[in-house]
Amino acid sequence: MSRPDSAMPTTFAARLADRVTHAGTPLCVGIDPRWDMLPEALRTADAGAGFFAEQAADIGTFCRELIDAVAPLVGVVKPQSAFFEQWGPAGMVELARVVEHARAAGLFVILDVKRGDIGSTAAAYAEGLLGADSPWGADAITVNPYLGGDSLDPFVEVATQRDAGVFVLVKTSNPGGGQFQDLSTAAPDSGGRERAASRLNGLLLYERVAAHVEELAATTAGGEAYGAVGAVVGATYPQQLTELRQAMPHAWLLVPGLGSQGGAAEDVKAAFDTSGLGAIINSSRAINFAYRREPYLSRYGEARWQEAVAAATEDTIEELKEGVGSLFRSGRQLH
Amino acid sequence: MSRPDSAMPTTFAARLADRVTHAGTPLCVGIDPRWDMLPEALRTADAGAGFFAEQAADIGTFCRELIDAVAPLVGVVKPQSAFFEQWGPAGMVELARVVEHARAAGLFVILDVKRGDIGSTAAAYAEGLLGADSPWGADAITVNPYLGGDSLDPFVEVATQRDAGVFVLVKTSNPGGGQFQDLSTAAPDSGGRERAASRLNGLLLYERVAAHVEELAATTAGGEAYGAVGAVVGATYPQQLTELRQAMPHAWLLVPGLGSQGGAAEDVKAAFDTSGLGAIINSSRAINFAYRREPYLSRYGEARWQEAVAAATEDTIEELKEGVGSLFRSGRQLH
Repeated sequence: MSRPDSAMPTTFAARLADRVTHAGTPLCVGIDPRWDMLPEALRTADAGAGFFAEQAADIGTFCRELIDAVAPLVGVVKPQSAFFEQWGPAGMVELARVVEHARAAGLFVILDVKRGDIGSTAAAYAEGLLGADSPWGADAITVNPYLGGDSLDPFVEVATQRDAGVFVLVKTSNPGGGQFQDLSTAAPDSGGRERAASRLNGLLLYERVAAHVEELAATTAGGEAYGAVGAVVGATYPQQLTELRQAMPHAWLLVPGLGSQGGAAEDVKAAFDTSGLGAIINSSRAINFAYRREPYLSRYGEARWQEAVAAATEDTIEELKEGVGSLFRSGRQLH
Repeated sequence: MSRPDSAMPTTFAARLADRVTHAGTPLCVGIDPRWDMLPEALRTADAGAGFFAEQAADIGTFCRELIDAVAPLVGVVKPQSAFFEQWGPAGMVELARVVEHARAAGLFVILDVKRGDIGSTAAAYAEGLLGADSPWGADAITVNPYLGGDSLDPFVEVATQRDAGVFVLVKTSNPGGGQFQDLSTAAPDSGGRERAASRLNGLLLYERVAAHVEELAATTAGGEAYGAVGAVVGATYPQQLTELRQAMPHAWLLVPGLGSQGGAAEDVKAAFDTSGLGAIINSSRAINFAYRREPYLSRYGEARWQEAVAAATEDTIEELKEGVGSLFRSGRQLH
């Protein structure tokens, strides 16, 4: 596999820290294209079923222009696979081009796929999705823990081999996320055999998943601060964010839910370590479609939608600086 | 959307029952292509990275010929998305062609994607994946419940609109599936407010997910025996299969793990209702690559791999008949 210069950081955690530090902001711009929300000038396809390929081409154009607008401002982007899969194979062709475009612009790419499967199937996902020489080329992906630790292992193994990363869903930002994640759990009594696991009894399900993630993160850290395994923790649960930062000291946190989902900048302060690292904060819709809302609509209108995107990104970066405090006060940091 | 003749069943559950009854077997053939396991004659691409498009074309050919071999014998197939995503966008182009080929052969197609996401993202997955007029055209998909009931609702809504189906992961067939799924759960005490939910306290996580699935299945059944929501329950846990059949009387069960994963035909009997319906039993690798193992290797060799596939399928159908008993004793049933 191709390697960067020896002076460049190589592991997932070091590369991610490098991008965040270089950009001077932990903001990650989510890429959630929706064809019917694109600026009129970009909607060249006919509406309706039967024009999937043309609609996919439109969202591809939008995404690449979006990346061009935010690449000077942030270090990380997160394309959401669903909004590409929605257009069928043509959408997936565009997704690969979008990842390539983002990487060429120097961005760290987290592919938000929330995959999860067993054994060799998980290995196929991992092989396919992770690493610069894979056909998708993601720096990291999101995965779902419901199938248990052995379903995560193939992802962790491939990620470690390729200096890529895996973010495991721990506590999600949706209102109903707690239905299963917030349940109190205990290992069923099996005649004493599993008593060794009893230290985890009473933990909520997401806390137990967090304990597993920390184990994987610490194991893959190899003496460094952070490992190849991170965690997704919603910005809509600030109290849990504090607890989970402490519970997973070796895990980068990916924190979605800022902006449209109701999370506020001051709520995410707890996600960071004392160096201002260890967390990236995602905003998708509020930035992607900034031109559709005030004050950006009046200021830029639809025609200058890329300027609206850049302005909303800059405003979010400022909000994060205020909310997070001194960590990123000095603005863009250079090496 | 295009509608079948008025004499044809339209809902997901009725269509699935029709295919199973017509085929006279509940066997579902999983489609898990692995390029390096293809018969030599089909591996026309060079090995290694950089030939993803050519390798994808090879697996597409294999899958279509596999479908041709099994279409006269079974009613349902289940392509596994990971083995197509592995080859990048070119693999996804092949996946769509494989789904189309299977539907054209009269097969019911369950796309095994195990997706799961929140709100409008889940809706994008559902819109994209489900229904004859979607760009993928699946009759049903598999989904992951970790994100909670509100993450499942968009899938259920779209499935109901389009007479498609959703199989929710409940109890998976992998050895480590129990790490989270088998935990005993209780709603945390929140000052009495959630006491109404206490009837579920003490249930294992997968039992709680099953209770939610049954609620969705019953709601979408509209007075019929089965609803638009089913459950994935591994064949490797025969005792749980009995309990889960009882716990989810309105849910079709998709039972993977037969064959390579160690599940035996007699273990799955409990998955069926008294009419011999309500469950489909999946086998993937043992059928896909039958030519690589005895007795098929000696009998057919690599060159006649399609005959090996057909023979392994017929043998599995017979094993299921013996294991399941009288339900399918009479062989292929005609209308």
